[in-house]
Amino acid sequence: MWGGRFAEGPSAIMREINASIPFDKALWRQDIASSRAHVAMLAAQGIVSAEDAKTIDGGLVRIAGEYERDGVPEDWDLEDIHMTVESRLSELIGAVAGRLHTARSRNDQVATDFRLWVREACERAEAGIVALQNALVARANEHSASIMPGFTHLQTAQPVTLGHHLMAYYEMTRRDRSRFTDARARMDECPLGSAALAGTGFPIDRQMTATALGFAAPTRNSLDAVSDRDFALDYLTAASQCALHLSRLAEELILWASQPFGFIRLPDTLSTGSSIMPQKKNPDAAELVRGHAGRIIGCATALMVTMKGLPLAYSKDMQDDKPPVFEAAGLLDLALAACAGMIADATFNTDRMRAAAEAGFATATDLADWLVREADIPFREAHHITGAAVKLAESRKLALDQLPLEDLQAIDPRIDERVYRALSVDASVAARASYGGTAPDAVCERVAEARRDLGLE
Amino acid sequence: MWGGRFAEGPSAIMREINASIPFDKALWRQDIASSRAHVAMLAAQGIVSAEDAKTIDGGLVRIAGEYERDGVPEDWDLEDIHMTVESRLSELIGAVAGRLHTARSRNDQVATDFRLWVREACERAEAGIVALQNALVARANEHSASIMPGFTHLQTAQPVTLGHHLMAYYEMTRRDRSRFTDARARMDECPLGSAALAGTGFPIDRQMTATALGFAAPTRNSLDAVSDRDFALDYLTAASQCALHLSRLAEELILWASQPFGFIRLPDTLSTGSSIMPQKKNPDAAELVRGHAGRIIGCATALMVTMKGLPLAYSKDMQDDKPPVFEAAGLLDLALAACAGMIADATFNTDRMRAAAEAGFATATDLADWLVREADIPFREAHHITGAAVKLAESRKLALDQLPLEDLQAIDPRIDERVYRALSVDASVAARASYGGTAPDAVCERVAEARRDLGLE
Amino acid sequence: MWGGRFAEGPSAIMREINASIPFDKALWRQDIASSRAHVAMLAAQGIVSAEDAKTIDGGLVRIAGEYERDGVPEDWDLEDIHMTVESRLSELIGAVAGRLHTARSRNDQVATDFRLWVREACERAEAGIVALQNALVARANEHSASIMPGFTHLQTAQPVTLGHHLMAYYEMTRRDRSRFTDARARMDECPLGSAALAGTGFPIDRQMTATALGFAAPTRNSLDAVSDRDFALDYLTAASQCALHLSRLAEELILWASQPFGFIRLPDTLSTGSSIMPQKKNPDAAELVRGHAGRIIGCATALMVTMKGLPLAYSKDMQDDKPPVFEAAGLLDLALAACAGMIADATFNTDRMRAAAEAGFATATDLADWLVREADIPFREAHHITGAAVKLAESRKLALDQLPLEDLQAIDPRIDERVYRALSVDASVAARASYGGTAPDAVCERVAEARRDLGLE
Amino acid sequence: MWGGRFAEGPSAIMREINASIPFDKALWRQDIASSRAHVAMLAAQGIVSAEDAKTIDGGLVRIAGEYERDGVPEDWDLEDIHMTVESRLSELIGAVAGRLHTARSRNDQVATDFRLWVREACERAEAGIVALQNALVARANEHSASIMPGFTHLQTAQPVTLGHHLMAYYEMTRRDRSRFTDARARMDECPLGSAALAGTGFPIDRQMTATALGFAAPTRNSLDAVSDRDFALDYLTAASQCALHLSRLAEELILWASQPFGFIRLPDTLSTGSSIMPQKKNPDAAELVRGHAGRIIGCATALMVTMKGLPLAYSKDMQDDKPPVFEAAGLLDLALAACAGMIADATFNTDRMRAAAEAGFATATDLADWLVREADIPFREAHHITGAAVKLAESRKLALDQLPLEDLQAIDPRIDERVYRALSVDASVAARASYGGTAPDAVCERVAEARRDLGLE
Repeated sequence: MWGGRFAEGPSAIMREINASIPFDKALWRQDIASSRAHVAMLAAQGIVSAEDAKTIDGGLVRIAGEYERDGVPEDWDLEDIHMTVESRLSELIGAVAGRLHTARSRNDQVATDFRLWVREACERAEAGIVALQNALVARANEHSASIMPGFTHLQTAQPVTLGHHLMAYYEMTRRDRSRFTDARARMDECPLGSAALAGTGFPIDRQMTATALGFAAPTRNSLDAVSDRDFALDYLTAASQCALHLSRLAEELILWASQPFGFIRLPDTLSTGSSIMPQKKNPDAAELVRGHAGRIIGCATALMVTMKGLPLAYSKDMQDDKPPVFEAAGLLDLALAACAGMIADATFNTDRMRAAAEAGFATATDLADWLVREADIPFREAHHITGAAVKLAESRKLALDQLPLEDLQAIDPRIDERVYRALSVDASVAARASYGGTAPDAVCERVAEARRDLGLE
Repeated sequence: MWGGRFAEGPSAIMREINASIPFDKALWRQDIASSRAHVAMLAAQGIVSAEDAKTIDGGLVRIAGEYERDGVPEDWDLEDIHMTVESRLSELIGAVAGRLHTARSRNDQVATDFRLWVREACERAEAGIVALQNALVARANEHSASIMPGFTHLQTAQPVTLGHHLMAYYEMTRRDRSRFTDARARMDECPLGSAALAGTGFPIDRQMTATALGFAAPTRNSLDAVSDRDFALDYLTAASQCALHLSRLAEELILWASQPFGFIRLPDTLSTGSSIMPQKKNPDAAELVRGHAGRIIGCATALMVTMKGLPLAYSKDMQDDKPPVFEAAGLLDLALAACAGMIADATFNTDRMRAAAEAGFATATDLADWLVREADIPFREAHHITGAAVKLAESRKLALDQLPLEDLQAIDPRIDERVYRALSVDASVAARASYGGTAPDAVCERVAEARRDLGLE
Repeated sequence: MWGGRFAEGPSAIMREINASIPFDKALWRQDIASSRAHVAMLAAQGIVSAEDAKTIDGGLVRIAGEYERDGVPEDWDLEDIHMTVESRLSELIGAVAGRLHTARSRNDQVATDFRLWVREACERAEAGIVALQNALVARANEHSASIMPGFTHLQTAQPVTLGHHLMAYYEMTRRDRSRFTDARARMDECPLGSAALAGTGFPIDRQMTATALGFAAPTRNSLDAVSDRDFALDYLTAASQCALHLSRLAEELILWASQPFGFIRLPDTLSTGSSIMPQKKNPDAAELVRGHAGRIIGCATALMVTMKGLPLAYSKDMQDDKPPVFEAAGLLDLALAACAGMIADATFNTDRMRAAAEAGFATATDLADWLVREADIPFREAHHITGAAVKLAESRKLALDQLPLEDLQAIDPRIDERVYRALSVDASVAARASYGGTAPDAVCERVAEARRDLGLE
Repeated sequence: MWGGRFAEGPSAIMREINASIPFDKALWRQDIASSRAHVAMLAAQGIVSAEDAKTIDGGLVRIAGEYERDGVPEDWDLEDIHMTVESRLSELIGAVAGRLHTARSRNDQVATDFRLWVREACERAEAGIVALQNALVARANEHSASIMPGFTHLQTAQPVTLGHHLMAYYEMTRRDRSRFTDARARMDECPLGSAALAGTGFPIDRQMTATALGFAAPTRNSLDAVSDRDFALDYLTAASQCALHLSRLAEELILWASQPFGFIRLPDTLSTGSSIMPQKKNPDAAELVRGHAGRIIGCATALMVTMKGLPLAYSKDMQDDKPPVFEAAGLLDLALAACAGMIADATFNTDRMRAAAEAGFATATDLADWLVREADIPFREAHHITGAAVKLAESRKLALDQLPLEDLQAIDPRIDERVYRALSVDASVAARASYGGTAPDAVCERVAEARRDLGLE
């Protein structure tokens, strides 16, 4: 009946479905750190003797050394990292190992270990974001006045500066970073000492273990502490939003690297070539960054569905919290690094960018704005006049600023020669000097501000 | 070829797919508020005359009155709320209406309007959470010492207090509230004045409009400002996590209201009866709260997928941002209110709860803990002794504290009569007085703290 | 405490959360049809008298007329469409209306009504797909030999024909259609007569109602019949996959309509222009199609999460099944129609396409293939030789087929003048005549086959 | 700048983000099978010599032996399984290995390999479903007349038979199986020979390779063939729906195993005990099945998001197709096996089930039905009478069938002594003999039909 890999029957099924050691061995450092903090507290509170505590701590340090050197053994019968460590501790120091589990349970232990891991993942994400921001700011600084077409609906709309475009991603990642910071602040409470679900009768000092593990305080409700996975969801939703931003950046890099655009040459290290098509440089890294957004969002969905409708307190379903977080974190770290590398080392083809901006009457809005500003014409009427001018230029195959003045005046006599100062792409971007606008000076201000925020000046 | 509702052909398709007025009319208050702030700024900066500004503002106020009284007319040819308002303004005040659109575009306008709406939705969510917290804290206070079984794996594990159980949801919703607070802080920048995508050449004062609309500052990058929907995603992910917590609460209420549990009688107002089965009181409100978690998570997924891989700046795809947010907000407000109502007015059957806690050897852990604490036996050995005691009690069909002392001593002679003080459910919960534990005194402390945080004392 | 729209307290909350009539009124046709089938069967089986049945049926027909003319009244106190109809029936025909509900319950009634609605939605989706396929096939036929660049990684790879490219979407939609066909076959069982959950003691004839409503058979298990929403999920997953294909088509249309590509001019009816930028034709319909994929996938996610972990039989959570299906169906119908319209009426700029295909050494693979085929060189070596040729052409700024023979022979003496026949884009596409390949003849065969499948010839 | 595991800089990032060998090595059997089919076809068509083909095939067979014995070496510089195999082939047989890649590319190769893998995953899922169905049918047969409470809203509604309840899951899994069958039929076309994207100029025989690999036909469009991942999505959506059904079964097993229900004792092999709480048998396997639904749905979401908006043809994003499918398949196989094991070996506590069914006036509907049937009272009026009877019974703390006849007649004189035959739980279930109803005879018919469908009789 069972067949295949379950030929042995239910016990083989159970061993495989129940064992978390294949993935939770990633928590070994956190497990040993939390056990060491726990036993130190037990000793300080007189719950175990100083001598026993010393023996236990020595054993834990020795195990850490073994795992560092040889990796964590994966014995499915020991189920998880907690039993794996505890079993090894018994082998090393005998029955006294049994005292370590006083006043705690696997439920608060795994909640603590995993929270420690996720906290570090937040810090890693923040570091990855900062690396990307450094690259963005450096290239934005370099290209604060390089002109490219600004798109809406992927149609050429108005000229912008490349520096301004890159700084848009600085803003997105600034919000991304703040999300990880918020998540870290929200998870800054230590579950250890919540025991199985109800707390414990032992006179433990939860503030002491919380402090030792770098948390601001212990959690306030033991039932919540063992059944909460908000910290993991906070990580996953922050990662999803960050991945969405990276997917947008990746999409643009892929577009820009295509032959019809030709705006960018991606670094060789982050592309793949083809022995027969040297002109073909596949933007593999960018495509994978874009693809990873799907998997990261899938991870967030996974944990949300798993947590839906679970009664309190701990349920085994919650063992399915770790694979999505581990996967998402690995992908996010990689995607951030790949983006930083692509931005830092890309070659921008500013000539192609400028030429694309100059095509397509991208300064038509500037003509309309000039009419409002200089001739006091209501905006909607100014639009109408501009439409006529663009139509004329199009029929003559001229750029807007190549139309003779008399032709413009034939459309509307209020136009005078000052208008030409508004119609070049350089004039267009220089004019948009409102706060947050694309003018080179405005971009330089934002870059300077960002450099200060990043501690670069 | 087109058939059905598109018999007219492509123009009928376009009118239907393109029109957002059926849903974005919900933004009318925000649209008028942002237009009033904009025109006041234009006048202050001398971009429009004081007189024109006054005429425009008067027209806007009049439109607000009309919409308040009669609703927003839904003319698909006007596409969206912005054109609907502007068109009405033209009817009312003539060509001067055209000056309102100076130095702005629909791109920054919709970003501003929608952000204002979402900011209010955050505030509404926080108020809904506080109402639920008030109910939780009041009932927790009332039941700080009521005993019920604590479950892990939905198996009776250890006795807990009902107050402690309810306060677990207080903790969850505390985090939920902080998520909306964080979201509001992150969206506290005003996009208005970013214009189509690149900023504007008019000498606008973006801080002035930001302040007028209650934002801390203007956004820093115009490309980002018109293509960012982070604020909507922040709302949706916060709502999803909150909805997950409510789904867990709802699941428990449904379980508790079932005949086999019988822990709770839900209020008549939030249940439905059956004319033929008076004993049957269907927990419809709780079930809908649980179901709504699905739809709210679906809304978050929707917007994530929509935003994936969009190049800068504005793309029309982003018009699909509003339906998921409007839907999720309506469902969340309702779910929070329903939970508050159920908690406030439920009747807890504390006798059934206590009886369930007393069945099933729920104090077995207390015996083990006693052995560790009083007889200095390593925890793992204590577990073994306890197992033997439970087995004996089970075979005799007795509760643990009904076993004669000599029988217990036969299992392990280190047990003495003091043990009985540890084996009642009352003793069990009283003992778990560690910080965050289930002891009535600990619960009262947490309740007092929560009442202070809620401004109740 | 309740505030806002719930000032009335729990009963206001309950009325709002419980009422499904705002959306399930869309089921009125199905509800009346299933009631008519039910009462006809009750009469045939002698469960109600022929006279009563006639009275009831007359009342139902009259109600249908009212709703057709005036719409369905939305009285929240009547909760849902079933009570709305039944209540009106009582008003019209008095107490005999009460006999209609014999041997059924709202649980099997809603399962039947909704299944009927979804079945029609499947048929509508299939019709929408066929309309799109007709457009694809017509344009593919027209452009079976028009040459464009084929992309991988959005890099120009090899020339393909536009007809071949369009027929790729024919294949995708062929699978989409089969998914709706499969879904319809799977839902071809009628739940009516399953009653509340357990079947009924009345001597009903379920095959008779099944047949009357166009189902192949009655469902086989009453518990399953009232708690199953597979048919809705089948619709939603089929719609999601179809929407993904449309999102890919939309992405390509948007790319092709951009200035750097310039491959296509979208029809005016399905774009929006701009009074000041006549060159700007925003591909709004395509963007909305792409955006709708997000919302449709969100709908599928919503119902999956809602159904997760629900015990049997009916739970009220399942009332949340309809909004996602109604929303997704509306969006899918619209997206299919918009795509059909865009494909049917787009103007392809075949000159730009051909020029793009001729740039970039797109026939390099043809050189390598020629070396393998004509000179019997292993493929990997042929690649190496081709790389050298491309490098040389690139350095001389020539196309591959502009390189003099002696230069090619200097690279490898086995090359002879026949090679030039392989290096034009026309030769390249003509050569790829393998089954399913891009050669014009192969495309014409596929088009002919598709036309037969669509009943066009 | 790069820090951490990317200290080496972009090339380290690229190696890690680009390499798929860590997961696609799972495709080695498929890769070798498709290469063998390809080279046999090349020889049959005279594209490579018979001798070369023999050498290549021998090399492939030898590699298969190596991998079977030693596993697949994981060299990130070789990127993927295709390059890994090809590189080894070169080592073994020299330059002739280069001929294998004639008329194919990695794009059609991976599409073929992965499709072969997914096809087998479908077959494995079907086998897993059949094993579960065997268990369901066996236990349903055993318990065709065992009585338990049927729930709606998790409130006791009407008595049903356990066999009927189990057969509801048979129906769900019947649909699940048909979904995998449909998916297999839809993916029954072979992409091999589509080459990079456009087909090939070599005179290949695609039907030959398709047949050799067990496909019905070659794919019809090369662009579609290399950029389609519908087969993977078909698997993932079928798996998601199946997982949802299993999550519902798991939820019920968890509820039934709880102390308040006490309906079931799960097999020891698929539960975990606790040394101190022998009464506590944690339903770990059921909880993990329920949790896995989240992860499987997350996998489906992941691939949908990844595919959204990708232009044709192959993009590297599509490399992210495999991890979600591999993960979901592993989880689904395990969940199906665990469910089969739990159903096969569970001990049903039929006394507790019957007692629960007898409590709570579960036969009230039977009283109403009796009034309609025997006294010709309209259903709504019968409901009213029943309500009065239940109210009376409740006030007297009697079951319905313990009420004296005179009391019933005082409520409505049309009631006579025959009514008592309708009011026992046995009478209730026996009465519901409509097709698909819960009556033991009806269940036996369905079981017999299922046994025939499963080939058991």
